[in-house]
Amino acid sequence: MSVTDELLANAERYAATFDKGDLPLPPGKGVAVVACMDARLNPYGVLGLSEGDAHVIRNAGGVITAGERRSLAISQRLLGTREIILIHHTDCGMLTFTDDGFKADIQRETGVKPDWAAEAFPDLEEDVRQSIRRVTSDPFIPHTDQVRGFVYEVETGRLREVKP
Amino acid sequence: MSVTDELLANAERYAATFDKGDLPLPPGKGVAVVACMDARLNPYGVLGLSEGDAHVIRNAGGVITAGERRSLAISQRLLGTREIILIHHTDCGMLTFTDDGFKADIQRETGVKPDWAAEAFPDLEEDVRQSIRRVTSDPFIPHTDQVRGFVYEVETGRLREVKP
Repeated sequence: MSVTDELLANAERYAATFDKGDLPLPPGKGVAVVACMDARLNPYGVLGLSEGDAHVIRNAGGVITAGERRSLAISQRLLGTREIILIHHTDCGMLTFTDDGFKADIQRETGVKPDWAAEAFPDLEEDVRQSIRRVTSDPFIPHTDQVRGFVYEVETGRLREVKP
Repeated sequence: MSVTDELLANAERYAATFDKGDLPLPPGKGVAVVACMDARLNPYGVLGLSEGDAHVIRNAGGVITAGERRSLAISQRLLGTREIILIHHTDCGMLTFTDDGFKADIQRETGVKPDWAAEAFPDLEEDVRQSIRRVTSDPFIPHTDQVRGFVYEVETGRLREVKP
């Protein structure tokens, strides 16, 4: 049995007691969260989110690239969110390599150099600030007066704010 | 008080009882989930995930673009995941507009046409299949023998598989 099959058994249990079938499409709290995909960072637990509350956007590093700007534009323009919470975290995998090294390894193995930036970063707080700036300078995200950035500490469970 | 401030109060409560400070960086279950950012879709609840279990990647629609292929390459190559679960859902916002219409609206308002695809789709199941194909045809994601796609039903809480 694959891990996927194991998780599908969990999904059947979730459906068996499900009672949230009438939630509206727009997020109830009007917030979009952009966080790292890291397994230890659970935005629902940390922020106390429930079904229906917030858009949750995640990727390797919690970085802001064209895809995240696309999702945030859709979130605000079509679904009414107004606040943005950015979350990076300590002990992040993105601190452990460089774009050049990672892409050279892939090119060595496959013969092809990836046509994307890996978005590795050497300084956690500075990349949170960089992410804030990428959001606030985007011409297609209308509401950028409530964009705040944080580092989640995987060691302590604490969320600490990074000033822009 | 902003909604962000309200969620930060939740984060203090999470940290106060936190006891998972020794989890390793690689996901314990070796799985990466790619799901829509929709507020009603809670991958932790649906799949029974806990802190440390899985990478969770999310965006508007749960689509596969360059950014998701970047995250999946990092997830598998640097952090050892082997299985991929793709989740779209019923009543998705991406079914309610077209790329051309959305981008024309933005251009009318800002004077600038977005340089990204909005990735709207008219057929839910077909876009799950499209996402599977985008993953399995990517040259930089090494393990594509366990890539399965699903539709989450926001009305019933059920997860149903889409055959490729």
